[in-house]
Amino acid sequence: MSDPRENSASTAADGTSFDQLLQAIDVNKQRYLTDLVEWLRIPSVSSDSGRVADVRRACDWVHEKFAAAGLKVQTVETDGHPLVIAETPAVPGAPVVLVYGHYDVQPAEPLDQWISGAFEPTIRDGDLFARGATDDKGQVLTHIQSVCQWLSTGVPLPLQIKFLVEGEEEVGSGNLERMLPELADRLACHCVVISDSSQYADGQPAITYGLRGIATYELTVRGPSQDLHSGSFGGAVKNPAIALCQLLSSIVDSQGRIQIPGFYDRVEPLTTEQRQQWQQLPQTDEAFASGIGVNELFGEQGYTTDERRWARPTFDINGLTSGHQGEGVKTIIPAVAHAKISFRLVPNQDPAELTQQLQQHLTDHAPPGVSWTLESDHGAPGMLTGIDTPFAKAAEQAIEQAFGTKPVFIREGGSIPIVTRFQSVLDCDCLLLGWGLSDDNPHSPNEKFRVQDYYRGIQASARLWNEIAKQSN
Amino acid sequence: MSDPRENSASTAADGTSFDQLLQAIDVNKQRYLTDLVEWLRIPSVSSDSGRVADVRRACDWVHEKFAAAGLKVQTVETDGHPLVIAETPAVPGAPVVLVYGHYDVQPAEPLDQWISGAFEPTIRDGDLFARGATDDKGQVLTHIQSVCQWLSTGVPLPLQIKFLVEGEEEVGSGNLERMLPELADRLACHCVVISDSSQYADGQPAITYGLRGIATYELTVRGPSQDLHSGSFGGAVKNPAIALCQLLSSIVDSQGRIQIPGFYDRVEPLTTEQRQQWQQLPQTDEAFASGIGVNELFGEQGYTTDERRWARPTFDINGLTSGHQGEGVKTIIPAVAHAKISFRLVPNQDPAELTQQLQQHLTDHAPPGVSWTLESDHGAPGMLTGIDTPFAKAAEQAIEQAFGTKPVFIREGGSIPIVTRFQSVLDCDCLLLGWGLSDDNPHSPNEKFRVQDYYRGIQASARLWNEIAKQSN
Repeated sequence: MSDPRENSASTAADGTSFDQLLQAIDVNKQRYLTDLVEWLRIPSVSSDSGRVADVRRACDWVHEKFAAAGLKVQTVETDGHPLVIAETPAVPGAPVVLVYGHYDVQPAEPLDQWISGAFEPTIRDGDLFARGATDDKGQVLTHIQSVCQWLSTGVPLPLQIKFLVEGEEEVGSGNLERMLPELADRLACHCVVISDSSQYADGQPAITYGLRGIATYELTVRGPSQDLHSGSFGGAVKNPAIALCQLLSSIVDSQGRIQIPGFYDRVEPLTTEQRQQWQQLPQTDEAFASGIGVNELFGEQGYTTDERRWARPTFDINGLTSGHQGEGVKTIIPAVAHAKISFRLVPNQDPAELTQQLQQHLTDHAPPGVSWTLESDHGAPGMLTGIDTPFAKAAEQAIEQAFGTKPVFIREGGSIPIVTRFQSVLDCDCLLLGWGLSDDNPHSPNEKFRVQDYYRGIQASARLWNEIAKQSN
Repeated sequence: MSDPRENSASTAADGTSFDQLLQAIDVNKQRYLTDLVEWLRIPSVSSDSGRVADVRRACDWVHEKFAAAGLKVQTVETDGHPLVIAETPAVPGAPVVLVYGHYDVQPAEPLDQWISGAFEPTIRDGDLFARGATDDKGQVLTHIQSVCQWLSTGVPLPLQIKFLVEGEEEVGSGNLERMLPELADRLACHCVVISDSSQYADGQPAITYGLRGIATYELTVRGPSQDLHSGSFGGAVKNPAIALCQLLSSIVDSQGRIQIPGFYDRVEPLTTEQRQQWQQLPQTDEAFASGIGVNELFGEQGYTTDERRWARPTFDINGLTSGHQGEGVKTIIPAVAHAKISFRLVPNQDPAELTQQLQQHLTDHAPPGVSWTLESDHGAPGMLTGIDTPFAKAAEQAIEQAFGTKPVFIREGGSIPIVTRFQSVLDCDCLLLGWGLSDDNPHSPNEKFRVQDYYRGIQASARLWNEIAKQSN
């Protein structure tokens, strides 16, 4: 027996029911998986200038997928990697939903840490391993599959669904952000749906109602015009690698508290209600720590782990490069030292303001004898969305039906820079529905997506369109 | 007219005089250069396990050179790269001199900064560019050429000369150091002559009477079992790259003063006499700074540049490696961060004691949430030798005759780890005669040796054997 609510869904002219749609989704699992594997094979690393053709192939793949299912689709060129925009027919009086996702992926390095090739999708123990499996090809494809299945099964969609699948999410969505105003009419919607986050824990789905912002930089310190012998010159000149370490150390104290003047000025304290709600979530620090292979968690005093990663700003070094990195000893004073760094911000913090504060902080702390440059890469503010909107309620229903468990409302420490722009430019609501797990390793070696979560995501997506239509009645 | 002192040299049975030897050295310049170019073409990078065969070829090259000139020569195997030991016939009652040098070279990286290939010797503006040109193939070859020329010209050498040319100087001379006691009889000598340093300045030759010691380490900080997404995990765990920067920053303060407890305990203050002598040397800080491309020199307060680089201990970061190093942004918390670090020590400081002090310092400063390891690579104490020995006086004469300028007595910030072992095991004096220039870029891209200095080194070396014999009469 199916849930009686399902029977309230539309029925096709030929009598095809929502039940039959759900059965079709069950029957087509293998094909959905084949599709995903095919897409994951394309190494669409947007930050790698040597991968431009591969990024284009990944774009073409999704364009074709929409075209084959009968959606109206267009590949929109940008100054970088293109956008794919698709839509189902308009449904007068019904809501319009925009599904946003991305077909680009993070670099796969370090390659030697992958058990199977980053672009050779492989299933082990029910997990599909590949770069992009969860971030974001696997997740966005759940919505594409569900809509294509609605269309091919012939059950009339009770609302209009638009898709925007871009190729620069992993490099900051700069082109999309710039073009958003001119695309606003085409993308007009009541709610943006994004699946690029995770469930709270294994077996505990979640709706994410907040994201952190981000600001990324490359800090370069230069000393002598070339590497010097550390014997003949050690003591005579400032070592740029030491200067870099000192500058980076000046940014954060030993307790993880950021030392840039003004950094916390706009950070709002957590409400008691919010803290109490999160403290009821099941996960423990011990399980969290052992899941990522550390003996001890670390962070700002006075906050729980979830509070620190969801609702407190942080500073991280993402990469260090200087001097001799090969085998053995090479006793030099390096000419130059580089660091890639990033901050995660909370709502109200402004990345542009941070850039100014950071420039000032570095100016104040830079030692003599070296020069430095700070290159700002991309920034986006954090965001918060409502948890009692009709869209959130619809998602709660759809997820509970597909996963068999009521979702919890959480925040996420990661950033989806374009989300706040959607909110302001399209004046729409936002639903972040993560089908992944927190140990899916996005941005890391052995990224994965549980095959079962891929299927459940497609089921939840198919039900979501139904539930949104019901909530809007 | 030749210097009358030259006429006091030995004359061959057939009447060949020292004058004729000097003329022969003049005539054979091109051949000496061809030899050096040939040797420099062999990429004998001792630290690179992929270059073992090349290192052996460089060893064979020098072996053949000795054999062809009629020296008694043997290649002595070690647990690593072999030694070449050669000698001229014993001269009863006369001094025995041991020339020490090395045929191995530093890695050539970063390759893209070489104007011509590191192993494609190229002359530009009178300088011969190649890895090993000055450190040490070009310099040790001056002595080999001079002795071979003495032998082939037929002027009887007034003393016995032994050669020890090794293949692991750039990786710490560990095998030679271990084997030195068993080789002591064969290498027995009154003085070791080493040309692996530089003149004080262009046109101002020098005799180096002190070297700094060295201790090199690799410090590794480990956090999570793999790279993590800095959004989902930033704030929850200690970032190993931040921990590394904090640890490295704890080693030295912003003034260049090392913060390891006990580090300066054995450092003796400079004497007023020594400081006054060095302050009379011609070079200025401005010229020194502009020669290496920095706007400003840097180091411990209260010491001149020469004092800091010759007679004060220092700490340097030689390399940093962590996380994402490629193009673009990758917002991760790296699993691991590495630093290659080195200290230069002054006489009386003990590298083994430093290792213990450093371990303790890191234990005291290591943050929670990460683990660290310190791997000790190689260490050697500093050394000081007399400036008024007969050998030093002989060298002063020989250099003045060959270079046309009286040499100054200086110290050198670099380290030749085996020197102190020679002093103690062979109970001998030591002469450090640098033919290079301070901007010859040893250990750096575009290493070079001025062709004229190579020739003058051969001339000074040929005269040195004569002068030592005279001083010992």
